[in-house]
Amino acid sequence: MVRERVTMADVARAAGVSSATVSYVLSGKRPVAPETRAVVEAAIEELSFTVNVTARSLRTGRSSLVALIVPDIANPFFAQLAATLQEQLRGLGLHVVVCGTGARRDEERALLAEAVHQRFAGVVITPFRLKQQDFKPLVDAGMPVVISADVSFGPIDLVTPDARVATRRALERVSTSQRRRIAMIAGPRDATGGDPRLEHLRALAMQFGMSLPHELVVRGEHTREAGAAGFGALMSRRYPPDAVFCGNDVIAVGAMDKAHELGVDIPGDVALIGHDDASFASLVRPRLTTIRYPAAEVGRSAAQLLIERLNGRQAPKTVHVMAEFVARSSV
Amino acid sequence: MVRERVTMADVARAAGVSSATVSYVLSGKRPVAPETRAVVEAAIEELSFTVNVTARSLRTGRSSLVALIVPDIANPFFAQLAATLQEQLRGLGLHVVVCGTGARRDEERALLAEAVHQRFAGVVITPFRLKQQDFKPLVDAGMPVVISADVSFGPIDLVTPDARVATRRALERVSTSQRRRIAMIAGPRDATGGDPRLEHLRALAMQFGMSLPHELVVRGEHTREAGAAGFGALMSRRYPPDAVFCGNDVIAVGAMDKAHELGVDIPGDVALIGHDDASFASLVRPRLTTIRYPAAEVGRSAAQLLIERLNGRQAPKTVHVMAEFVARSSV
Repeated sequence: MVRERVTMADVARAAGVSSATVSYVLSGKRPVAPETRAVVEAAIEELSFTVNVTARSLRTGRSSLVALIVPDIANPFFAQLAATLQEQLRGLGLHVVVCGTGARRDEERALLAEAVHQRFAGVVITPFRLKQQDFKPLVDAGMPVVISADVSFGPIDLVTPDARVATRRALERVSTSQRRRIAMIAGPRDATGGDPRLEHLRALAMQFGMSLPHELVVRGEHTREAGAAGFGALMSRRYPPDAVFCGNDVIAVGAMDKAHELGVDIPGDVALIGHDDASFASLVRPRLTTIRYPAAEVGRSAAQLLIERLNGRQAPKTVHVMAEFVARSSV
Repeated sequence: MVRERVTMADVARAAGVSSATVSYVLSGKRPVAPETRAVVEAAIEELSFTVNVTARSLRTGRSSLVALIVPDIANPFFAQLAATLQEQLRGLGLHVVVCGTGARRDEERALLAEAVHQRFAGVVITPFRLKQQDFKPLVDAGMPVVISADVSFGPIDLVTPDARVATRRALERVSTSQRRRIAMIAGPRDATGGDPRLEHLRALAMQFGMSLPHELVVRGEHTREAGAAGFGALMSRRYPPDAVFCGNDVIAVGAMDKAHELGVDIPGDVALIGHDDASFASLVRPRLTTIRYPAAEVGRSAAQLLIERLNGRQAPKTVHVMAEFVARSSV
């Protein structure tokens, strides 16, 4: 896919400009008229021109490492994201290193600082407790950054899920099996951007005439232990739920552990729905019904955005990746 | 655990030597008499003295990153190893970055080179296709390296499993259920050090009067796909096996996929035994019987060896971690 034979001179020829102009478009070091920039960018795209990153890093002193910073390295969703990212970037001589923050803001900040300090080639990150201002040092340092998250962090490249259709389909499915009291085991209150998956579910549930009362929303970390604790808390309510949505699949597996322990039948007594489609979702019994966020597509999109940045794109871009409802046996 | 209040002067006082001598023991920059070294090392251990790595890295220009280099980032065994390593090293201001090589030797070599080039604080690695000479540049550069593997790579710190007792128990279990024809889905022939798990199994099987004939050994990568292909190949033999050992749990899950597809009942028709006890081993149905290699203990041992190296230990050390037979439902 990456054709290193195409040179800057080829691009210049195709665009009818000088090589210097192509270089200015790529580096942003001097202003280029918008029309000229558009012509050059079209030529770049047409020729699949990619800057030889290794050669560039030798010139600029940047390393060939790209940091993928995630809250939970043991969540297979991120492992698959890492694998795809690595595949996409290998041809450019870049290596992906995965950094787990344990969902701690101090770790998240320390790793961002380290990426700048070590002159990494780029950063792809799923923030958990970071705030918008935490990205300022990276932007100031000219570090290419791609965020993969449910919410925006300002003018930074973003890959984000569109889960409206998938969540609607999940609710249709829950509603046809006559469930009325839905619950959610959500992430912690202080996670960045709140919990869009919860807001989303609440808004749609109303349209389906189902309730998502406050006493049926429990919160915790994105861990198996928190999933078990959350499910236990929900089942001890005076009117327990008959359908439980989980913030991610790791939480859902914890909920299954607790259901088994309590003798609660899934899906007989309670329907269970995850988020992400982590690899084990199809391995557990009953097999987990989930709202799938395609890790491979997220990885490809993030790689693409990063490559464009390395090639000099300045304006931030957002890519929406469609989530998908995957019906298995837990509803 | 890491008490930074203890200074080199405290160690010197406790050992009855000068601070300079403590420093020589730590850095290895000048020879120290063996008896003196022993007294100083005892004092270091007693006082839980740990060099302040962050302060040292500022002096030496080393980064605060430790690379964990593994063949398969999606294997939860390595994710748990990474998490434990990070926990153990956090107090020293070190950050673990995980690098997946996809079991490719070129990637393995490139990442080692990058670790030297970037002046990483240390490397923990499970090599897959590397050879002993590939480590020479790291040793020459004075890079602290810990290898986690079944086999030794020369005079380098090693964390290695002792699976003799656990494999014997697995074979006892298989033999009491009247299985006689055992098979193995092993790793690729060109993996470094061959496949000690296979050699091991073969030697022990003979003691149990069971055969492990050549036609019942199939080889492939450590992937789910290779596990499925290997299981399919074994079932198409004229005399198929009644017990199948797998090189790791990822392979075993692939074998389960194929068994399901072929209508082969596990454990009714064929017993299945994994290696590692990756997190999903207890999630699949039937739950996977496996030879557990405790990732958390491996992580703790690797961290300990690395810290000792950072504190100046020169002589290589090997730590044996006991594997354990975990009987679940697939035998």
